[in-house]
Amino acid sequence: MTLDDLELGYDIPARPGMMEAEILTPALVLDLDVLERNLATMAAEAKAHGMRLRPHGKMHKSVDVARLQMARGAVGLCAQKVSEAEAFARGGIPDILVSNQVTDPAKLDRLAGLAAKGTRISVCVDDMQNVSAISAAATTHGIELHCLVEIDSGAGRCGVTEPQEAVALARVIEGAQGLRLEGLQSYQGAAQHIADPAQQAETLARAEDLTARTVAALADAGLPPEVVTGGGTGSYRTESASPLFTELQCGSYAFMDADYGRIEDHKGQRLDQRFGYALFVLASVISVAKPGQAVCDAGLKSLAVDSGLPRCADDDLSYLGASDEHGQIADPANRLRLNDRLRLIPGHCDPNVNLHDWFVGLRGGVVECLWPVSARGKSL
Amino acid sequence: MTLDDLELGYDIPARPGMMEAEILTPALVLDLDVLERNLATMAAEAKAHGMRLRPHGKMHKSVDVARLQMARGAVGLCAQKVSEAEAFARGGIPDILVSNQVTDPAKLDRLAGLAAKGTRISVCVDDMQNVSAISAAATTHGIELHCLVEIDSGAGRCGVTEPQEAVALARVIEGAQGLRLEGLQSYQGAAQHIADPAQQAETLARAEDLTARTVAALADAGLPPEVVTGGGTGSYRTESASPLFTELQCGSYAFMDADYGRIEDHKGQRLDQRFGYALFVLASVISVAKPGQAVCDAGLKSLAVDSGLPRCADDDLSYLGASDEHGQIADPANRLRLNDRLRLIPGHCDPNVNLHDWFVGLRGGVVECLWPVSARGKSL
Repeated sequence: MTLDDLELGYDIPARPGMMEAEILTPALVLDLDVLERNLATMAAEAKAHGMRLRPHGKMHKSVDVARLQMARGAVGLCAQKVSEAEAFARGGIPDILVSNQVTDPAKLDRLAGLAAKGTRISVCVDDMQNVSAISAAATTHGIELHCLVEIDSGAGRCGVTEPQEAVALARVIEGAQGLRLEGLQSYQGAAQHIADPAQQAETLARAEDLTARTVAALADAGLPPEVVTGGGTGSYRTESASPLFTELQCGSYAFMDADYGRIEDHKGQRLDQRFGYALFVLASVISVAKPGQAVCDAGLKSLAVDSGLPRCADDDLSYLGASDEHGQIADPANRLRLNDRLRLIPGHCDPNVNLHDWFVGLRGGVVECLWPVSARGKSL
Repeated sequence: MTLDDLELGYDIPARPGMMEAEILTPALVLDLDVLERNLATMAAEAKAHGMRLRPHGKMHKSVDVARLQMARGAVGLCAQKVSEAEAFARGGIPDILVSNQVTDPAKLDRLAGLAAKGTRISVCVDDMQNVSAISAAATTHGIELHCLVEIDSGAGRCGVTEPQEAVALARVIEGAQGLRLEGLQSYQGAAQHIADPAQQAETLARAEDLTARTVAALADAGLPPEVVTGGGTGSYRTESASPLFTELQCGSYAFMDADYGRIEDHKGQRLDQRFGYALFVLASVISVAKPGQAVCDAGLKSLAVDSGLPRCADDDLSYLGASDEHGQIADPANRLRLNDRLRLIPGHCDPNVNLHDWFVGLRGGVVECLWPVSARGKSL
């Protein structure tokens, strides 16, 4: 890094070779051994069930992590936004599904531009008018965009809710210039974080029912889906066991977080025993003025708290409350000293990663690499 | 902007001259007329009460907004982190208080480096050992750092809680090489967002009591504080009316947010009638597949939800729930169409600003300027 980089807004928290205690904080750190184990475990699980794995890049936003996933057999990556897809395409990922609706003509033009430069691009659709706009962008660029009809299998976000709506969309896609009908997206995002196994199973059964009826209706219409994509870290065993799904979109498994850690999966095996915590926010103690309590330098601008406060990796400490730049730490034994480093396990990995510019990769307590959060803030 | 800028990670949401409906979303937009009124109102309030105004830059993180505040009589800026202070110093702000503890020797070295390059730097202290470290950094750089003893007037974060501890710290600062004792910081952050006037008054009275006892103890020790700094947007009228305080640190008044909007201040006058909403997240509709509901493209990565969900600027709409990249909008009249733009009033301005790289400045519905969020992500 040079001064020019700093002027452009980058502050680097560490350099390779540093010890963990020398890292400038707050910083996003990755335990590389755990990360590599998590990647290998999910690659093996997908393979064992004959599923294609298309990990979700919205979680890590990292070209470096994406490359590790591709090297372990991923068929491509999911992205949630066009600007995110651009970051992954620039990083050399050859096949990207934007697992979301892209409706703004200016963004569709950018998306088609990626395909024109050689990236295989797929995108989801839940609206007739949008099919025309996607077709127009593809035609302008003289390329083919792959389309998946999105059904809302219970999350209440995008997607149609009736099989016949999906069939109608599929027919229009099939007939539209520059578009190729690829299949179906059925992702039940809300089911990922249900802690109760019975309740989660029931939610996923309802999702599977709509998926099955939609697949059947598409087949009846002569448009059987080649790809049925869905599944997340909290539900992928169900989709893997289903005869309907062909592709998994899991993201969080690579890093995990405190919220997933709290959830026992519906097979009775703890998720956090299968996938380890690879992601931490490293914080430093900046005040010990009051007994039983310390203050650290990681608050709301370094930690996403939408799914709860972070967990301290050290069991004798707990993170009590966050303000913008401060975290209150309960330290009943008064053992913390100024500048002590603390590892915090974020409550929700995706938005937490998005707050930072860099990953500091650690192995054996030593900094091995510094990776940019390539798609940080890329929400367009 | 050039391709090089884009490669470095910047996506610009707009260019001057665009209409609001052409802005790529999600984007942070500023109503420049309202912003200017808010800045003028607070400058006038501070002047009327003979208070110095040192607006908090942690909220806007913008050199451009800071310059507008300086042009309206601010004595300098507050920052919460060293890297944030660096961004403001680079932007030409001549006088910066880091209203927080800086304890890491590497960061103290950077802080003293700013003073060596000509910025007047002050910093808070609540620890004897830290005084030595600050003194060492100042001595190394051959400059003077201004120190404020921080008391914890009830927020439960940094700061000492006994007047005699403050006196002991002040004595050590007074005797330390390279340091100049400036006074006292007494900021009651937790009091800012108390909606009940009586409860807020009681909380602020307790804060004022500790402040008064500490000022008296320092005076008795022959170390009367020149500066007593504190006060936020939710409490500044109390500090302004007090004979103790000399300086206000308000930040949120410039932009406001939905949480402050919900709070009537303790004088019975609505804050949101004195200060208007200048900050919005502009979002677009990406799905209208289900009746009564739309989905927009702004979720947890574009909106900070720690103080509640955003409010729709259009009263007939409401923001029901956020996932990472989606927002569910209740649209009972089914009036929304794909690509319609929505103005969302963020729940909490500070962390919300920190999610974005750019402010799009609007006047009369036309883009007038594009300002970088100069200190975005600067948490070191």
